[in-house]
Amino acid sequence: MTKPFEQFVAETTGRNLTKAAYIAIATGVAMMVLLTVNPAYEAAHRWVDALLWACLAYFVFEWVVRLRHAFEAQRGWIYATSGRGLIDTAAAIAVPLAMILGVEPRTAWLLSIAWMLKVIPGIRGLRQLRRVLVVESGPLLSVLVIFLMVLFVASVAEHFLERDYQPAAFGSVPAALWWAVATLTTTGYGDVVPVTPLGRMVAAAVMICGLGVFGLWTGILATGFAAETRRDNFLRTWESVSKVPFFAALGPAAIADVTNMLRTIDLPTRTMIIRKGQTGDCMYFIASGEVEVDLPGKKVALGEGAFFGEMALLGSSLRSANITTTRVSRLLVLDLVDFRMLMARHPDLVETIDAEAQRRALENK
Amino acid sequence: MTKPFEQFVAETTGRNLTKAAYIAIATGVAMMVLLTVNPAYEAAHRWVDALLWACLAYFVFEWVVRLRHAFEAQRGWIYATSGRGLIDTAAAIAVPLAMILGVEPRTAWLLSIAWMLKVIPGIRGLRQLRRVLVVESGPLLSVLVIFLMVLFVASVAEHFLERDYQPAAFGSVPAALWWAVATLTTTGYGDVVPVTPLGRMVAAAVMICGLGVFGLWTGILATGFAAETRRDNFLRTWESVSKVPFFAALGPAAIADVTNMLRTIDLPTRTMIIRKGQTGDCMYFIASGEVEVDLPGKKVALGEGAFFGEMALLGSSLRSANITTTRVSRLLVLDLVDFRMLMARHPDLVETIDAEAQRRALENK
Amino acid sequence: MTKPFEQFVAETTGRNLTKAAYIAIATGVAMMVLLTVNPAYEAAHRWVDALLWACLAYFVFEWVVRLRHAFEAQRGWIYATSGRGLIDTAAAIAVPLAMILGVEPRTAWLLSIAWMLKVIPGIRGLRQLRRVLVVESGPLLSVLVIFLMVLFVASVAEHFLERDYQPAAFGSVPAALWWAVATLTTTGYGDVVPVTPLGRMVAAAVMICGLGVFGLWTGILATGFAAETRRDNFLRTWESVSKVPFFAALGPAAIADVTNMLRTIDLPTRTMIIRKGQTGDCMYFIASGEVEVDLPGKKVALGEGAFFGEMALLGSSLRSANITTTRVSRLLVLDLVDFRMLMARHPDLVETIDAEAQRRALENK
Amino acid sequence: MTKPFEQFVAETTGRNLTKAAYIAIATGVAMMVLLTVNPAYEAAHRWVDALLWACLAYFVFEWVVRLRHAFEAQRGWIYATSGRGLIDTAAAIAVPLAMILGVEPRTAWLLSIAWMLKVIPGIRGLRQLRRVLVVESGPLLSVLVIFLMVLFVASVAEHFLERDYQPAAFGSVPAALWWAVATLTTTGYGDVVPVTPLGRMVAAAVMICGLGVFGLWTGILATGFAAETRRDNFLRTWESVSKVPFFAALGPAAIADVTNMLRTIDLPTRTMIIRKGQTGDCMYFIASGEVEVDLPGKKVALGEGAFFGEMALLGSSLRSANITTTRVSRLLVLDLVDFRMLMARHPDLVETIDAEAQRRALENK
Repeated sequence: MTKPFEQFVAETTGRNLTKAAYIAIATGVAMMVLLTVNPAYEAAHRWVDALLWACLAYFVFEWVVRLRHAFEAQRGWIYATSGRGLIDTAAAIAVPLAMILGVEPRTAWLLSIAWMLKVIPGIRGLRQLRRVLVVESGPLLSVLVIFLMVLFVASVAEHFLERDYQPAAFGSVPAALWWAVATLTTTGYGDVVPVTPLGRMVAAAVMICGLGVFGLWTGILATGFAAETRRDNFLRTWESVSKVPFFAALGPAAIADVTNMLRTIDLPTRTMIIRKGQTGDCMYFIASGEVEVDLPGKKVALGEGAFFGEMALLGSSLRSANITTTRVSRLLVLDLVDFRMLMARHPDLVETIDAEAQRRALENK
Repeated sequence: MTKPFEQFVAETTGRNLTKAAYIAIATGVAMMVLLTVNPAYEAAHRWVDALLWACLAYFVFEWVVRLRHAFEAQRGWIYATSGRGLIDTAAAIAVPLAMILGVEPRTAWLLSIAWMLKVIPGIRGLRQLRRVLVVESGPLLSVLVIFLMVLFVASVAEHFLERDYQPAAFGSVPAALWWAVATLTTTGYGDVVPVTPLGRMVAAAVMICGLGVFGLWTGILATGFAAETRRDNFLRTWESVSKVPFFAALGPAAIADVTNMLRTIDLPTRTMIIRKGQTGDCMYFIASGEVEVDLPGKKVALGEGAFFGEMALLGSSLRSANITTTRVSRLLVLDLVDFRMLMARHPDLVETIDAEAQRRALENK
Repeated sequence: MTKPFEQFVAETTGRNLTKAAYIAIATGVAMMVLLTVNPAYEAAHRWVDALLWACLAYFVFEWVVRLRHAFEAQRGWIYATSGRGLIDTAAAIAVPLAMILGVEPRTAWLLSIAWMLKVIPGIRGLRQLRRVLVVESGPLLSVLVIFLMVLFVASVAEHFLERDYQPAAFGSVPAALWWAVATLTTTGYGDVVPVTPLGRMVAAAVMICGLGVFGLWTGILATGFAAETRRDNFLRTWESVSKVPFFAALGPAAIADVTNMLRTIDLPTRTMIIRKGQTGDCMYFIASGEVEVDLPGKKVALGEGAFFGEMALLGSSLRSANITTTRVSRLLVLDLVDFRMLMARHPDLVETIDAEAQRRALENK
Repeated sequence: MTKPFEQFVAETTGRNLTKAAYIAIATGVAMMVLLTVNPAYEAAHRWVDALLWACLAYFVFEWVVRLRHAFEAQRGWIYATSGRGLIDTAAAIAVPLAMILGVEPRTAWLLSIAWMLKVIPGIRGLRQLRRVLVVESGPLLSVLVIFLMVLFVASVAEHFLERDYQPAAFGSVPAALWWAVATLTTTGYGDVVPVTPLGRMVAAAVMICGLGVFGLWTGILATGFAAETRRDNFLRTWESVSKVPFFAALGPAAIADVTNMLRTIDLPTRTMIIRKGQTGDCMYFIASGEVEVDLPGKKVALGEGAFFGEMALLGSSLRSANITTTRVSRLLVLDLVDFRMLMARHPDLVETIDAEAQRRALENK
């Protein structure tokens, strides 16, 4: 086995999708869409077909590589039954299976929409959304039950009130349900509309209930999300805080306190963090990576554990130099607000920052 | 009276709906829906009728059993006038009463939608929603009054502006109200639409007011919900905390503190709580029930008051064993975030956890 | 002047609307609505006309009484230029003025919608809503400007893209604005819909912006509302707390603390607060008024400053007696959650409650 | 160069738009709208054209002045590539360029919508909104990806289910996407509606997903906004607090505490802050500017650092004098709620206020 192939396998079986996979998904879905547009397909059906088959081949290959890798690591079944494994399987075999079962090819290719699901495990923040849904599942389910109950009661009522006037639209409860769901979600297609005075009163009540359900739904999600955001930030920041020597001297209580004040950001290489002359309202600690300070006449590199941007918090609010990352870096951001809180609660920390700032100011004079 | 019957009565008169009742509700409502679909009803009217009568019989029987039980316990009137009692009565007598009064049977059966209301008392979290509505009733009512005022003022304005152009749709204020409610809730059927420039300006204002009303509504509910969630969690967790010996030594201030950090979850028997090899970010205390730790070569049972999953918080973030409930269990979850808060505020607690973790690590070597 | 008339004047010039005024508003608006429904008006035009004139007479009379009263108290102009005074004036003279100016009577009566505005000053909680709008006016205005900008840009774009295909609907920017406002608010009448592919892409972007604007709007209002609710509760409760001798011994810091935990409720006379046998999760302090405890064999009255319902928080969670108000009362509610917080922070208070509870338990044995 | 011209340049190159610019924007956009309305344009095309050219001339002139100013200050390229510079450029050259390229004039003028973008940098609170979008970009992007995924999956499903029944509306995936976006945003035009039972079930699921997406969106924005509002208020108030000598004696911890309690408001000259006889629930500190107290018989001026309105918090809740600004002023507002918190935490501050209040009361007797 050659080196590049090994690397390819390593990337393919890693946690994140490879760039090639993203390209294949985008191309494949675009081609699938084109396939359904008759003029476009007739004009370029060779290209469309070729690209679709190429994408399919890629996903089948990826699936085989991952499956083999998983079985070699003796966790084949774990992978195969995990959400990710099931999506990979669907992406690889749905279209061929449909074709083998005799489905017309242009219809079978529609199943390639399953390729799109492959991005799901890569969405950062989805874990957060899922936790909110789990933690708030009780109230969310209650709202859903209320939603369904209003839906059914309204459908039966409108069926009773409107069936003689609009037999096609309200002649049966399932038909009335179509109206009810479009109304309760405030979508309001308007293809079916009650015409009797009483029917309209019921409809008005359903619309207002729609607002209420919506409000509850949003309220619950907002509540859950606020808690989850705080929690997620703490978890992400905690790891980094302990790596900054500056905070290492603090006791656990103070670290928990400081962690709540910091925000973690990840930056790619060669990103300008601070632009000279801009107004600054935060300072930065380097959790990992390296930055370069562009002082007049010289360039200073700051590494892991160092901090910068503190002068904007200690008097002069204008940034005095450009600062750029030279590697992929993780920074901890301390806002002006929280700097002042910190100043109040941990005066010794601020003294250290102050001393360093004065040293730098002298040096750069 | 036989044993099974006694048990049936006990279950029927208990707080929660029996499984049979849920089945009867689902079947009954489904049959009622089918009844209104002409082709389906014609094809299977015997089955539909039979099932509907069976469900009705079940609900009448349930009602009689509950009523008798309540009167025997000398709280017949309390039950009969409670929300639950009234729903039971409606579910039992609405359909027969309508038939006796000469309503056409297929119409009378529509009243069986009342059966659906029987699930209301069983919705967990509804109590929470109701409390939010009660506590926030002041602002919610204000929004409702504003909503109604905008509705009426807009209707009168559109009636004045559009009546000459669209006499059918805006010829009277009630007709204009129909337009107004569909617009203010942003449903927008589109069956009635103003055509004059001034009429459209009023309509645009109504739509924007709709967004505003909606935003206020949601904002109020979100606020109320946040407070209620915190409160509900405290109440549910407090009971359990006091049952865990581990926390018993704490003073009331510390217990209130700890209670705010914990989350209660109820798990059925044979549920896997922790899967070996997964990343862990919380530990568990057993408030009631029992779990089984699946260590290599042996199985260890942990009972009420024990804790587990602490290793993921003390260094290694990967779970080292499968853990499954062996009984219906109530667990208290302590998240990594809160564990660190706890570490800061109550170092002695963490020392206990640490000592136990080391003991276990040694034992399992 | 007779006694009843004096009382009538006192009530009319008071802060709240009299019952008569509410009846007049409801009747007047209902009659105005009926007036626009041709069949109804033709059938009962005498009644409708008579009632409308009667309501108008009432409002004119009320206006004169209030005006005279205000001028007697030398604050005639303050009243006349206040929001309330302007609404009263409009309600009294809008309809007659229109008639004098030659407007057709059935049209002139439409102005009686101004009567509805008289309820505005009486809406409790409107002050709270207004404060939120004032405090958050900055961000809300920003969102409004963004809303308007999207509206105009989208209208110009659609006018450019669609004018050749739909000259009636998109032939001018004002016409396109009508489409844009219905789309951006997600109302979506559907009377005007873009048909070109590019036009539809712009429309899709507008709809998604609509969701975003809506989300920002709601987020801002929710934030403002949370702060305002906390503030309003504090203000209302603070007054009452200082009247309860039980809390009088506390220092200002503790009172501020306790105030945040309590909730004020106002109850009319003869309202049952606690029902025997129910589960209790709060206790009550009487800020003003009186309640009656219905113990077996005797009735005990509790007056201002007393507390009750504490047993449910101290062990037994079932209420042991019915308790009813005998006067209009203001109570302070202390939830179980907050009781436990209080227990932790002010143990002496809880000891007092405990002692009293034991004394009562002994007495009632 | 004359004085007025220098002043004009200074204003034009300042941070905020001049009044003339606002007038030009409003006039220009209004004329552009009129241009598209055939009857209006035919009646007054000379005026419309003249005003449009005048506005264009103004914006070109403004652009040249700013550009020259920027190049003189050696930051020409910084300005030209900044958001503001790009908008200025677009506003100045878009219309002429289109005309030069041979676009029909009435179409070319549509590009003057770019003038409207000039207000963007002036929107106070936009910075706040942008920060929320940046900080919450992770979860917002996740929701967007979910939104797109539901959109595509629903389109493909409906294309498959409905293409035989409605070839025009669902014959291709792009056509179905139009339906999907109108449904998922709950806009619901109703121009395209599924007709098959299965198609309607998918549509119902899409509508409910729409509510969910919307709720998540709002929840995330609400959460971000709450944090940002708190932060923004702290930043704005901190500057002012340090200028009030009254707070100068406090240590940094106490200042951070007090800053969270105060709210900054900016008032133009001759604004009445307090009206005699109204109920007061806050007191004011003057951060900059001057106010005039209208006492019986004399007028007292209060300058920077003074406070007023404290009597309403110390017993009598009615304001005892009119107080008006005599200059543009920045005030710090302390609400009754927070005054009491302050009272509890910093009793010495309150004693100072109390002493001053008594001195004033004596003086004004």
